[in-house]
Order: sequence, then C-alpha cells, then structure tokens
Amino acid sequence: MNFGSDNWSGVHPAIWDAMGRANTGLVPAYGRDDLTAAAVAAVRATFDAPQAEVFFVGTGTGANALALSQICPPWGRIFCHESAHIETSESGAPGHLSGGAVLALVPGADGRITPDALRDRLACYPQLDEHDGLNAVLSITNASECGRVYGPADVAALTAVARGVGMLTHMDGARFANAVAASGASPADLTWRAGVDVLSLGGTKNGCMAVEAVVIFDPARAAGFRFRRMRAGHLWSKHRFLAAQMLAWLDGGLWLDLAGHANRMAADLAQGLDTIWPVEANEVFLRLPRSRIASLRASGLRAADWDMPGDDADHAAIRLVTSWATTPEDVTAFRALL
Amino acid sequence: MNFGSDNWSGVHPAIWDAMGRANTGLVPAYGRDDLTAAAVAAVRATFDAPQAEVFFVGTGTGANALALSQICPPWGRIFCHESAHIETSESGAPGHLSGGAVLALVPGADGRITPDALRDRLACYPQLDEHDGLNAVLSITNASECGRVYGPADVAALTAVARGVGMLTHMDGARFANAVAASGASPADLTWRAGVDVLSLGGTKNGCMAVEAVVIFDPARAAGFRFRRMRAGHLWSKHRFLAAQMLAWLDGGLWLDLAGHANRMAADLAQGLDTIWPVEANEVFLRLPRSRIASLRASGLRAADWDMPGDDADHAAIRLVTSWATTPEDVTAFRALL
Amino acid sequence: MNFGSDNWSGVHPAIWDAMGRANTGLVPAYGRDDLTAAAVAAVRATFDAPQAEVFFVGTGTGANALALSQICPPWGRIFCHESAHIETSESGAPGHLSGGAVLALVPGADGRITPDALRDRLACYPQLDEHDGLNAVLSITNASECGRVYGPADVAALTAVARGVGMLTHMDGARFANAVAASGASPADLTWRAGVDVLSLGGTKNGCMAVEAVVIFDPARAAGFRFRRMRAGHLWSKHRFLAAQMLAWLDGGLWLDLAGHANRMAADLAQGLDTIWPVEANEVFLRLPRSRIASLRASGLRAADWDMPGDDADHAAIRLVTSWATTPEDVTAFRALL
Amino acid sequence: MNFGSDNWSGVHPAIWDAMGRANTGLVPAYGRDDLTAAAVAAVRATFDAPQAEVFFVGTGTGANALALSQICPPWGRIFCHESAHIETSESGAPGHLSGGAVLALVPGADGRITPDALRDRLACYPQLDEHDGLNAVLSITNASECGRVYGPADVAALTAVARGVGMLTHMDGARFANAVAASGASPADLTWRAGVDVLSLGGTKNGCMAVEAVVIFDPARAAGFRFRRMRAGHLWSKHRFLAAQMLAWLDGGLWLDLAGHANRMAADLAQGLDTIWPVEANEVFLRLPRSRIASLRASGLRAADWDMPGDDADHAAIRLVTSWATTPEDVTAFRALL
Repeated sequence: MNFGSDNWSGVHPAIWDAMGRANTGLVPAYGRDDLTAAAVAAVRATFDAPQAEVFFVGTGTGANALALSQICPPWGRIFCHESAHIETSESGAPGHLSGGAVLALVPGADGRITPDALRDRLACYPQLDEHDGLNAVLSITNASECGRVYGPADVAALTAVARGVGMLTHMDGARFANAVAASGASPADLTWRAGVDVLSLGGTKNGCMAVEAVVIFDPARAAGFRFRRMRAGHLWSKHRFLAAQMLAWLDGGLWLDLAGHANRMAADLAQGLDTIWPVEANEVFLRLPRSRIASLRASGLRAADWDMPGDDADHAAIRLVTSWATTPEDVTAFRALL
Repeated sequence: MNFGSDNWSGVHPAIWDAMGRANTGLVPAYGRDDLTAAAVAAVRATFDAPQAEVFFVGTGTGANALALSQICPPWGRIFCHESAHIETSESGAPGHLSGGAVLALVPGADGRITPDALRDRLACYPQLDEHDGLNAVLSITNASECGRVYGPADVAALTAVARGVGMLTHMDGARFANAVAASGASPADLTWRAGVDVLSLGGTKNGCMAVEAVVIFDPARAAGFRFRRMRAGHLWSKHRFLAAQMLAWLDGGLWLDLAGHANRMAADLAQGLDTIWPVEANEVFLRLPRSRIASLRASGLRAADWDMPGDDADHAAIRLVTSWATTPEDVTAFRALL
Repeated sequence: MNFGSDNWSGVHPAIWDAMGRANTGLVPAYGRDDLTAAAVAAVRATFDAPQAEVFFVGTGTGANALALSQICPPWGRIFCHESAHIETSESGAPGHLSGGAVLALVPGADGRITPDALRDRLACYPQLDEHDGLNAVLSITNASECGRVYGPADVAALTAVARGVGMLTHMDGARFANAVAASGASPADLTWRAGVDVLSLGGTKNGCMAVEAVVIFDPARAAGFRFRRMRAGHLWSKHRFLAAQMLAWLDGGLWLDLAGHANRMAADLAQGLDTIWPVEANEVFLRLPRSRIASLRASGLRAADWDMPGDDADHAAIRLVTSWATTPEDVTAFRALL
Repeated sequence: MNFGSDNWSGVHPAIWDAMGRANTGLVPAYGRDDLTAAAVAAVRATFDAPQAEVFFVGTGTGANALALSQICPPWGRIFCHESAHIETSESGAPGHLSGGAVLALVPGADGRITPDALRDRLACYPQLDEHDGLNAVLSITNASECGRVYGPADVAALTAVARGVGMLTHMDGARFANAVAASGASPADLTWRAGVDVLSLGGTKNGCMAVEAVVIFDPARAAGFRFRRMRAGHLWSKHRFLAAQMLAWLDGGLWLDLAGHANRMAADLAQGLDTIWPVEANEVFLRLPRSRIASLRASGLRAADWDMPGDDADHAAIRLVTSWATTPEDVTAFRALL
C-alpha cells in the first residue's frame, strides 16, 4: 500500500526497452542525434504545434526554472498558486536560474487559481514605476498539486487575465499527462490554444526515468534557450537517452494510457470516501483522525502528511498518490484496511 | 573509425544491467533509498575517504559548476587552464551557478598547469583590497583536455601553491578514471592526499549513461551543498538510477578496466606516430596535412578539429578520442588508412 | 502643503556645511580617509557597539539588499511584512544582490509583524529537506512603512522567535531615527540588545543627501561584506562625502533632533483626526471621501495615494509624510484646509 | 606632490555651488524632478543625440556593470583589455549585475585594444554551439587605463570588427572627458558616430562628487534599464543632486576645461621625460630605479605602483595621475625633485 508519490515508481517496461534499443553504437552527443530529432517531432505532433521549439532536460525543477527564466526578466514577478511546486519545493530555483525573478503567491483552496484570485493579487502590485518590479508571468500547475484539473476553458480564462496585463503564461505540467487523461481535452487545447506560452511537460512521474520537455510554442520566444540549458548544466551529453524515453512515452499514446491508469486507481481508491477535494487526477486527499492515520501506517500504508487548514488536534490530512505502477491490489488492500 | 568523443559511446552492459535491476518496485525518491546509500559508501571506499560527502548529478557541467560554487564565493576568482572545459565549453556555468565567480586563465602547452605558470598568473591579481576580487580556487583537469595526466606529485605541487595563497583546489575529473588508470596512482593519492578539496568524478564518458559525483573530502566544506543541487534543478527524483550507475561502475574496478581499455586503444592508435603530445590517457592529437585530414574523413574517420598554435595554411590538428567502446578493429582500420 | 515623502526634502544646512568642509584637498579614495574612520567610530559610539563593522553606501535599497545578502544564503528565505519596502519597492533587489534569496510575506495591519503572525508564516515552510529552502532571516522595518514603531520589547519578542528557529534578524532602518525619537529607546536597546544582527541605518530621508550605513553588530558576521559592496558598485571613490554626511548627522544628536521634529510635525498634523493608525513617527494615514481628497489636492496638497483594505467607491486612503524640513506653517495650512 | 589618483580630488567649486542651489525646497524624488530632465537634455545635446536614453548613477562601477548588463545576455562574453577596470578593479561587478556574463581578455601594450588583437582573441571563441557561450560585447576604455586615447578612427575600426561578428560596443568613459579634450574629437564622433552603443560617462574623477551617466544611444536598446538600476540599488531618491552635478559639469564646457587642465598638467609633468607610453590624457607612467622611487616618496610624492613587464630587481614603474585640482606648483615641485 505505497502511495508515497508517483516519483517512487520505476520505469515502464516499454520505455526501458526503448532506452535499451538506443544503447547501440556511437552516436553524436548533445542532441545532434536522430533519436532527438524524432523525439522533438513527436512532441510537436502530439501538440499539433509544428513550429514549437522543444528542449529536453532530466528534472522537473530544471524544466520549470529554465522555462520560467526564458519568459520572465530578472526583474519580473511570477504569479503562482501558494501551493505551487515552484514555491514550495524547488528551494528558489526559479529565482536562481532566472537571475532574480520573484514569486507572488495566489491563495486558493485546491491548488487552482481562479481569475478573481489572480486579479486580486495583481491589484497588490500596481505598475507605477520601476520600484514595483514587473508583473511578467502567470504559472499554473496542471494537474494541480492537489490533484485538481484545469480544463481548456479554465486555462483560457486565466491566460486572458494574464495577457490583459501583458503577462505570459507558463504551465507546470509535471502531471500534464494526468490532466489530459482526466479532462479528455487535447494537448493543444489544454495549452497553446488556451493561451499557454511555455509548458514543462513531465515524463518522469509518469513512467519515464528522468525526462521533461520544455515546449516553447512560439519559436520567436525560444531565442537563447539553448544557452540557458547549457550553462545551468542541463544539457546531457548522451542525449539519446533522454530522447528515447520521450519517444517511447508518447508512442502510441502510452503516456495517456499510463496516466489514465493512475487516474483510475485514484478514483477507485477514493470511491465513496469523503475526500477533501474531488479526485480528478492521481491524487487523493483525506482528512482522518490522527489515531487512524497512525494505525494505517502501522499496517503498511505509505502516504505523505499534508498540513492544511482544517487540521486540528485530532484530525490531519494525508495525500495518497497513484501512478502507472499502482496495482488494483494496492487499492483493494487500502480500502479493506480503511 | 569513430573517434569523435568518448561521450558518443553508450552504456556498458554491466551498468545497464544494474540499472535494470534497480528498476523494481516503489522506492523513496530524491536519494533516500538504499542504492544511494550504497553508492555513497562505494565512492568513499574507493577514495579511502570515509568522511567524504558525496552527491550525484546527471551532467559534468552540473557537477563542475556546483562543486566550484561550493568552494568559491561569488566574488572569487578560479584559476584554470585556458583550455579547461569550465572555460571553453560550459557557457559560463561556473559563474552562473556560483552567483558570479570569474575565471583566470593559465596558459600552457598541453592542457596542464605548471606551478610556475600558476604563480605567474596569481601575480597578475595582487590582493590589495576589495577591488581585486578574491583569489579563491584552483581548478585542474585530470586527465587534461589534451589527454595529459597529472600524477600525485604534480597535483601536490599545484595544490601547495594554491594553499600557500589561501586557495582551495577543485579537480575536474570528467576523465579521472583515465588518469587513475594511466598513472597507476590510487584515487586517494591523486586527490585528497595530494591536496584536492573537491572532485567532480565523471562516470558518463566512461561507460555510464549520465552520472557524476561531487566528492567533498572534508565534510565541513559540504554545508549547504544539498540546497545548491536542489535549486539548480540537479536533484533527480528517481535517484536510484544515478546510484545504480555509480555502484556498477565502481564495482570490482570496472571503471578502471574501462578506462584502461580506452587508454590502451589510444596508445595503440598512436603507436609510432608523431603525436603533438605524448599519449597518456584516451586522447590522441595529430597534426596532419589538411588534404590528408580531408581524405581520412572521406574514408570514414570521425574526429574533431582542434585549432591550436602551429596550424598553418597546409596543416591542421585533429583530436581522436577512444572510449570503453572502442574496438581494436577501429584502431587497426585507422592505422591501415593512415 | 507638501507631504509627498520625506525623501523630497533636501540636505540639512549643518550636513551641507560639513560636506563643504570635507571638500578640501586631495584625500585617499574608497574609504581610506580620516573622515571615514571618524564616521565609523561615530556610528559605533552611537550604538554603544565598539566591535560593530560599519559600511556606508549611497542608497537605502543598496543598504538593505547588501545587508540581507550578507546574512542570508542564496537559498534562504527572508520573512518580512507584506508592506515592507524590500517587497514592494525595490524591484527584487534582495534576490538580485543575494544571488537568489526569496521573501516570505507576513500579513499585518499596520506594517508591523507580530510574533504570532511570524510563527504562522514559519509554519508554512517546514524544514524537512532541501526542497523547502532555508528559513534564514527575519527583516523588520522600524519605523514601519505605516509609521508604527517597534519598541525594544517588541523587537526582542520577534528576534526571539527568529533565533528560536535559527534565523538572524535584519532591521530596515530607513526611518530608524524616527523610531528612536518616538520610542525614547537607545539605539543599542532598539537593535543589538534586542537581538538585531544587522541594521540598515538611513540618513537620506532624515536630512542627508545620500548616505546609509550597514551596521553589522557581530564582526564575525562581516566577512566578505567589502567585496559585496564593491561588486554591486556601491563603494564610492570620493568616500569622504558619505562619511561627512554621517558624521554631521550623528554629531550632537542632530539626527534625533531632525527626526523628533518630523515626528512632532506628524503628531501636530494628526491631532484630533481619526487616523487609520496611531501616529507614532512621521507618517499620517487618513481615510477620506474621494471628493475631499480631490479638493485638497486642488488646493495644493501633495500626498501619496495608499491603497488598502477598507477603501470603497467613495473613500480612499492617503499618506502624509513629514520630515526635518516640514514647517509648522505647512501643518497649519493643511489643518486649516481640512 | 600628490598624484595618487584623480579620484582623490574633491568637487569643483562651480559644481559644488550648483548642488547648493539644488538644495532648496521639496522636490519629487527618484528623478521625477526638473533638474533631472534638464540634465538628461544636456547630455543629449552634448552628444548631439536627441534620442539617447540617459540614466544617472553614483559610481563608475555601477555605471559600467549596469551598462554592460543591458547589452550582454547572461551567457554573453565581453571582450576587454586585460588592464580594463572592469577586469582588474570591480571585483566581478559585470558578471554579478548581468547575471553571469564573462570577460575575455585582450592583451596589448598600453591599455588599448587593436583590431588585430581583438580578432585574435575572437578566434579563441568559435561560435559552434551553446557550449561556446556567445561573443556579445566589446568594451573599450577611453582614455585607457594607461592614459592612451582612442580617436574616432580607432574606435570605428574596433566597433567594425565587433559589429562584423554581431557584437555591440560599450565604452568605459570614466575618463571620457580627458579623451575628448585630448583628441579634439566631438563627443558624438568619439562614440555613437564611431559605432559605440552604450557609454559610461564619468563625472566623478573629473570634478564631480559622485555622478556617472549611462548613455544608451539607440533608445530601442534601453528597455528595462530602469529596472536594472533600481534592483541594483542605484536609483537615488534625492536624484536632483546627481542631476545638479551633471548639469554644472557640462554647462559651458566646464567638463572639457577641467579635463584639458588635467591633461596639460600631465603633459607638463612628463615634458622631456622618458615615459613608458606617450602622455595623451592625464596619466604619466615612468620606469625609475627603485631607490629613486623610494627617495621621491620620502620627499612627499604620492603615486601608485604599477607592476608591469619590464620591471626588474632594480627598476619599477609608477603611475602619476593629474586632475582638475592639480596645480602647476605640484608639477614644478615634482620636476624639481626629479
């Protein structure tokens, strides 16, 4: 009953095999190989975005911080949810790799930003002069850290607010596959057609070993990115192994099969339970008596604590995450215990 | 006849298999797994350095820039050879990740720094006051970019100069395995016993997929490094796959077997030829008539151009690199052509 | 009736004359002159802190950002009030000059942080591992941006919370003179004796032309600061003109006379009025009908808009700031109008 | 006999008086005052550049680092002379404020770069891919650190090389006034008409207290500069005092009178002497027996040591700098001693 995190899972066999097939012969380094070209083409095709510039890196924090640095000047302000990974879990990476960009936190119940909440936060930062810094970027996480999903209309409503004040939009898609699988929207409809400028597309949590793509939909915004990746140490020499993962992950829709499985496991896990938020993707949040949590853990449950408003002396919240590797047996075992 | 670079090679089968064995079950992320603990222990044992702090990352540039940032303040000056990778090939990564450190270039014929050349360069930066910045770090590359090797006495002579003016020493060991195999010195004798404070230990070029270790020999100098790695986006979530590579690479001395093979292939390649420098590790530099180079390439040779003093209208230099994957047949074919 | 800001005032005649006296002959540059030594001694004497390290710069933003960078690592988090100047008005300077430190905003009614509010905000950033960044610094502004004053006990209560979780404390003292004059506490009691580690001591708003002192009370914390000042371009060559200002400002308690005057003018301005917060230093906040504000301005009032909760379609808030240069006639004129 | 440096001088009386006249009444802060507008206009008129964007700061290092950061991306390389102030005396400020730009040093005898030397250095940095960083900026110092002057044709020849490889040009004009006075060229001919993109125009060394102008000739290149100045802490609140200095300095050609005087004093000082380089501006370099230098100092000479090739056990070089404040009596006294 291990629901610790989706990044506790390993590499899906099909992806592993593809990496093995890539392990043949001598191949040009640093992305000048055929597999890389094919992987870029596959991302473009998946997003119906033949012009997009696509860059692979090995970690989600690397992808986010590089993506943000590309569209936010060092004196820019990035609006994100107060629970966003870039705020809570990256130790200042966006500010570091961008050379100084700062985050402005937008509150909200379930990891999602609403247009009103964004407008309220924008109002805190009037743009009178250079003292104020520059309101530059909106960053939204889909699926959110709380497992909620923005649909195309939700995204479009937010990017409209951003664009209305001259800001660009980044999407942290560490769990983008789960969002696509949950919403049924196409990758294009959920991103560039809804106004997203740059996407961090995460493979690692969803069946890969270590690969994320930074997708810059308007190639005019991609100038200099290759230098950013290099000087942050994120250009792999044996780049074919990044490419092989991404190719196999997208191939035949495997990425959505895996995400769909994870989402279903979460739905099964939560069925009939009083979850803190509706379960849409691959995360389940439960508030339980603290004694109950202790006894579940004693029985083998692995799940993260999740401090949040509503906890009290007797009750606490936990987060259960499913993945491509979660089995129906895990789910059944947990529900039996509960 | 592909001698393009050692990073054109793939993953050695033993390392590949070890990664496969690591691909089982759900495992804590971010290095809190057993394989990581074992890999750290293996590095410590290899270096006879039980106290050393060891951190894994996926790229050599990441390792170098993080290692340097750890021992060089933002206002520090790093002395390195003018052909050092950190100067020529990392697009400013050391300055970026350190928050501003600068490089001072030391000239020299074969990628190696001599104590006199270091002293001459130090003399250019008197330390009168804060205008001067701080002479902070010596970085040496072993094996050097030209395939020459520093032995323990060479290293000790340099670190003595550094220490004498209050500087610490970093070793870029992207090809450290080749240096150990070539010199016959122990890893400890070639590093901390010779005064090296921090080593970037490279597995990628020598049979791994993507793994480098930052080895900080004095644990008192390691404070905060885990934040540096995190905020530069270099902490892998599925960290076991870094650890599995490193473990298998060191296991039973495989790393030195692979490096020894590569070195032998280079020696065989160069036997009797008039190389620009003696061949000690896995690189061979030749000056040839330009027409000859063209015809070799037409016959299938892959080797990098290497601009250097001594070239003229008719003659140019090329670099041939061997690796664990170079075959005697490659060598024979090249020599037959030549 | 100009209450736009205290930095709209000029240079007090006694300070001006001292600068003139300093304008004689050739004098060593970069702070190696006698006046600088005397000014450092004067700051030490004023704070009863003979060991303190003291550095002069020309701007408040420079002083704050350099002071913070000295005690906050690049991966550190600085807790400050949501209305703090370092958050609202410095365009990201603390993050820039520190190489990446981020701000965590503490809410509060009148620009002041309470221990409970600080504890609440700290609870948002558990320190489990490197993902979390490091809770490193508390920055408090005295007098606050709203003209409220922390007394020694208030400061001590906050620094105790900070120290309890391993954080250091910075005080933004752009209006420190007003705080001392208002509280009657000694400079030492209001700073290091109450647990403050580093102070930005502002002369500019209170009668000087351009001078702030960074006062580092524990000299062991001052290592490297001179490099920080230099490489941010904040070391004046004709440093004697910074020193002359500071010396004259402190001489004979002029600084407190000027601040006391400004505080009295604010008190007179506000007497009997329904101010948003009690007037303690040199700022008065009033909520008035918007039509009234317009007519006051038509009659010559200069005062800043100050958006805040409680405003509505008909009412808005304005901020009136007094300074050493405010005259009783200005005050009388405003009150007559009102 | 004080020839220590031109920044040991004070403030010229006419500039001092202008600052005094500016010290009247309450004036909008941060450059929104009439004097600032007039000073900007004066700079534009002086350079026959009505479109130029002009920003004032208080230090030369601030001006240089901000100017360079404006035209050099964080991954850019700045080519400058090995004796340039930005290399030898700013403790890494260009890299710091730009977020990572690096310097490539061009050798040369007298502080000046020749087109051939620049081309040679450029050849060290082929632009094959992102490993190489970006050759982005040429920075030339006029008058040079050695007191030599580039004329319009010299500047044009260098900027042509730069522009030919896609680089922009910065001029460090800490002693630009001396260069104009020496060359007789117009400010426009010596800068933008010769291809200079951004100038750091120094007032401080030449009669002002603390003011430098960053002059961006093409306004399209000025976007965002105001944020850079702010977040580096270089926007003065009482900005009128920067403006007053600049206005008075330029007014009626005072700046060139002062520089012309300094140049003449240097010429007089050097007349008939065997200087290391021809004396064109306000610096004289002499190689003398070490015993002679000691006795001159014992007799009251103040002059900086200047280590350089050609020194030996018995001989050393010294630098004598004249300024607006140097008197003929100083010169006569020195020559009598000699």
